[in-house]
Amino acid sequence: MSPEKRMKELELSEPKHTILKIGGSVITDKKGELAARTQVIDRLAGEIQRANAKNLIVVHGGGSFGHPTAQEYAIKDGLKNPNQIIGFAQTHHLMTVLNGLVMDSLIIHNVPAVSVTASSCVTTEKGRINHFEDAALKMLLKIGAMPVLYGDAVLDSKLGFTIVSGDQLVSTLATRFNTERIIMGVDVDGLSDADPKNENARIFAHLTLSEAKRLQGRIIKPTNNDVTGGMFGKIAELLPAVEQGIPVLIANAAKPNLVYRVLKGEKVEGTLIEKE
Amino acid sequence: MSPEKRMKELELSEPKHTILKIGGSVITDKKGELAARTQVIDRLAGEIQRANAKNLIVVHGGGSFGHPTAQEYAIKDGLKNPNQIIGFAQTHHLMTVLNGLVMDSLIIHNVPAVSVTASSCVTTEKGRINHFEDAALKMLLKIGAMPVLYGDAVLDSKLGFTIVSGDQLVSTLATRFNTERIIMGVDVDGLSDADPKNENARIFAHLTLSEAKRLQGRIIKPTNNDVTGGMFGKIAELLPAVEQGIPVLIANAAKPNLVYRVLKGEKVEGTLIEKE
Repeated sequence: MSPEKRMKELELSEPKHTILKIGGSVITDKKGELAARTQVIDRLAGEIQRANAKNLIVVHGGGSFGHPTAQEYAIKDGLKNPNQIIGFAQTHHLMTVLNGLVMDSLIIHNVPAVSVTASSCVTTEKGRINHFEDAALKMLLKIGAMPVLYGDAVLDSKLGFTIVSGDQLVSTLATRFNTERIIMGVDVDGLSDADPKNENARIFAHLTLSEAKRLQGRIIKPTNNDVTGGMFGKIAELLPAVEQGIPVLIANAAKPNLVYRVLKGEKVEGTLIEKE
Repeated sequence: MSPEKRMKELELSEPKHTILKIGGSVITDKKGELAARTQVIDRLAGEIQRANAKNLIVVHGGGSFGHPTAQEYAIKDGLKNPNQIIGFAQTHHLMTVLNGLVMDSLIIHNVPAVSVTASSCVTTEKGRINHFEDAALKMLLKIGAMPVLYGDAVLDSKLGFTIVSGDQLVSTLATRFNTERIIMGVDVDGLSDADPKNENARIFAHLTLSEAKRLQGRIIKPTNNDVTGGMFGKIAELLPAVEQGIPVLIANAAKPNLVYRVLKGEKVEGTLIEKE
């Protein structure tokens, strides 16, 4: 079949997408510096390959790669003096290094994964995505490739530059593309009413939108070096997607086989947030 | 100064840019597979840092990283069967690996270099760039960062995918941005009337547009695995820029200090192509 014919055929289908976020704290050790958990990355790549999910978009966070440099140079706050420019360049570069490890692993597992660089196709206004050039991304999905995005240092029309979190990318993608569900792979078992690292914390199996909003008010904004807001930022980013009727599952991607199982459509432990 | 104020100030200046292309055959050994010349990359990064050139855009080629896989899967010809998708993913990934080595070296030399991924912001129609989302690129230049692009596997509206050469990127950038000059860093001393690897080949120090066109007709299209057309493709890509009055210098970037000298504005050996 000629490429032209094939592209016309592909034009006709408009499937629903799954967005899988893999948290920076899953694939890196946030206590270290540039401490990638390469065995976890490899395991997750294997799970993605075995699940053989179609119409999947993957987004990953920055963990110990992006955050420390972004914080050192206050990239999120914008361009205040020229000395920050090298910090902007470094933050983006370190994110490409982490992404490179993820892509290496996916390609080795024969997954047709193609990285999409947010800083090349996304710009923000005061930290919020106001321009997302998604022509390439759409075509990747159409030909059957798996786009992989990641939180990144991006250009901002008012601030000069800032940080766009993986979570903001997930939310933007979900509301632009025909999205069936969002899977947030984190390093805890779900949303809970106490510190999730605390053994007695109760994990919510299901939350409605209004329950999630009430819970959000009780979670304290993190003051550590997570420049993208941790679990608080995650909920704030994702509620608009839930509002549009897209279910969000927050589940523990650090647990072997969980990502595989959820991609296969199995019911797994975690917090499911739905509109009602 | 607030980021908002700083951005308004930067808005006012519209400087002329220099585009530096570094050929894939300079930074890789095309006879090997994934054979990066890391010492050459490091030397060139040092030269770029020492020259401290402002308003510089760097573009590099694929050499032994992109070309063999692109050829194996016939990526340039477009999507004919689903087995090629992994080849498309691999070609892009290998280019990001080579680009990663270039960026590592520039960042280590404290150059505020930021990679711009063509496959994320460029799409083509039948192999020619018809859409170049350059908002991020423009803002990078504005804040004083140095964009680095590279030949890449890209999405194509008619073919599904194809290859965009570093040379086509150079030509597109030159005609879109306010460009002062193009420096084509290759692994020979310039354009010649015979095989440039032949000791008796005479290098043209200066060519007018019409002389270059006549010469082009005498260069035989390569049949080896350079999927982007080698020196023949280079001239064909660049003549439109020359036609717009942008001078193009073809010079030997494999020679130590040549890139440094040319960025400093010194006259160096090589072929200068000018409109008249």
